Amino acid sequence: MRGAVLYAPGDIRIDDRPDPRLVEPTDAIIRLSATCICGSDLWPYRGIESVDEPSPMGHEYVGIVEEVGNAVTSIKPGQFVIGSFFASDNTYEICRAGYQTSCIHREPIGAIGTQAEYARIPLADGTLVATPELPTDDQIPSMLAASDVLGTGWFAAVAAEVGPGKTVVVVGDGAVGLLGVMASAQLGAERIIVMSRHESRQKLALDFGATDIVEERGHEGAARIKDLTDGLGAHSIIEAVGTKDSMLQAIHSCRPGGHVGYVGVTHGDLPGDQLFFSHTHLHGGPAPVRRFLPELITSISEGAIDPGRVFDLTLPLDEAAEGYRAMDERRAIKTLLTL
Amino acid sequence: MRGAVLYAPGDIRIDDRPDPRLVEPTDAIIRLSATCICGSDLWPYRGIESVDEPSPMGHEYVGIVEEVGNAVTSIKPGQFVIGSFFASDNTYEICRAGYQTSCIHREPIGAIGTQAEYARIPLADGTLVATPELPTDDQIPSMLAASDVLGTGWFAAVAAEVGPGKTVVVVGDGAVGLLGVMASAQLGAERIIVMSRHESRQKLALDFGATDIVEERGHEGAARIKDLTDGLGAHSIIEAVGTKDSMLQAIHSCRPGGHVGYVGVTHGDLPGDQLFFSHTHLHGGPAPVRRFLPELITSISEGAIDPGRVFDLTLPLDEAAEGYRAMDERRAIKTLLTL
Repeated sequence: MRGAVLYAPGDIRIDDRPDPRLVEPTDAIIRLSATCICGSDLWPYRGIESVDEPSPMGHEYVGIVEEVGNAVTSIKPGQFVIGSFFASDNTYEICRAGYQTSCIHREPIGAIGTQAEYARIPLADGTLVATPELPTDDQIPSMLAASDVLGTGWFAAVAAEVGPGKTVVVVGDGAVGLLGVMASAQLGAERIIVMSRHESRQKLALDFGATDIVEERGHEGAARIKDLTDGLGAHSIIEAVGTKDSMLQAIHSCRPGGHVGYVGVTHGDLPGDQLFFSHTHLHGGPAPVRRFLPELITSISEGAIDPGRVFDLTLPLDEAAEGYRAMDERRAIKTLLTL
Repeated sequence: MRGAVLYAPGDIRIDDRPDPRLVEPTDAIIRLSATCICGSDLWPYRGIESVDEPSPMGHEYVGIVEEVGNAVTSIKPGQFVIGSFFASDNTYEICRAGYQTSCIHREPIGAIGTQAEYARIPLADGTLVATPELPTDDQIPSMLAASDVLGTGWFAAVAAEVGPGKTVVVVGDGAVGLLGVMASAQLGAERIIVMSRHESRQKLALDFGATDIVEERGHEGAARIKDLTDGLGAHSIIEAVGTKDSMLQAIHSCRPGGHVGYVGVTHGDLPGDQLFFSHTHLHGGPAPVRRFLPELITSISEGAIDPGRVFDLTLPLDEAAEGYRAMDERRAIKTLLTL
């Protein structure tokens, strides 16, 4: 089969990779209907995370089940399924508490590489959620968004305790930040302030329910947020970047007693005293997208939300390299790859 | 009046300081019934925080109101009152949300120095809570504990979402950690594990409701906690030290989705990726003791709790220097100073 492989920073190729086969009796093989490129794929693409050997890429996926192992009971061939970036049993205590990305049996899908025609998905019954009916072609981008960026933005909003009457600040105008705006609007936030300097992203944020745009960053950005919130800071902050600067911008935009939901993989050290004296709640980490998949699939199926709009570039899998370049150069928010 | 002044690391003296007078119409002057030395007083005493000029010391206090400004309406001369380490108006939005230590009008009591015969307390109506009756001599140590260490341990337990059915780990066997044990027991925790190597503190922890003692520290300590909790980590962690090592010990002892309440003033940088992948909730900062004072006073008055037991050394104010030395050398958990 064809699949994207990263050879070195900036060097993405479509290789002929071996077709996946069932390994464990709990596996499923899916034929991908669409896949996409994640902001986190840019870390190794840019060389910020090291690339030691040619690595299959991709961890977002929707597709049709081709085959299941003989221990799989709920997932069946022919179903359209969505999973997320960690396989999880969805059975034991940590999963039941809603932290499937810390499942004691978790397996990273990134190591499998779903920017490809087929993929083996471990722990199929726990990991995959089937749609009630086959989605229309129009719904596929939104279902694919649910696989990672929508679920991640949703978790960030829930971690930030977004709700009615709350003022929310979203740090980061990538796909996760933009879908954090959508989640905040769905969760009833009163005011949603997006920190963005990028016109097309500002426009999409406003379409998704943002009420204010702030272009300043860092200390100036946090000061502007204080100005907009009676000097107190916002109730809820969604941090969707993952640098030290963005984390501090988030924390300093939050009022004492407020909540920061952080989902950008945090790089660098954070000054303990600034966390301490901020008096904020911090919660985040690898988003347990699986927790939210059933409700997100329902909302998409009913047409209540249209998160697929974050894909502003669609290319065939064979042109994945151009998809990476466009995201790296911020010409595209997020690239969908067709098969 | 007499009062303790820090001249340089290790150099505490009892000076003749000016008697405090009303400055603002919202002030009260109290005559101290007792005062004490805080673990955080040891940071400058040890030279870890710099001492630029002779500094009056102390921020814990109980006493009798001598005089109030003409804007003070609820606090009256003759009352026995307790306040904590920040004066707060207890009126506006941040205070109403329970974060009085981030009050927009807050004033640090540490700058006033309550290891003295008298103290001026700003924002008296917001800051001070009067006991329903004059406490007995036996109750005074417990009322004094409520001024800081009990309220701080209580906040840590609440921030860590301690409750019925939960397993709690307490990192730090100082007065705050020990009273975090007491708070956890009062809040209904099922199991309370104290990390301590100090026999007399272990004994007091057990008296306060601890169920297990762990003597290992760091990675070994966190591994021992995992062993005791089916490999998952505890639900709730109270961090009552404030070093990078103690914070990491706390985070690595916590299960994904669990809660870390941290009240030691965090010194040093924390690795962002370890926070991120821990999947924990973090909440802490300067404890809003004022939030808890009414209920703590009631519990002490009714004899339900006896937090004054953390004072294992009682000296007259004039011997404050020996009180500091004893705490610095860990010969005493906490020193009460009589007047």
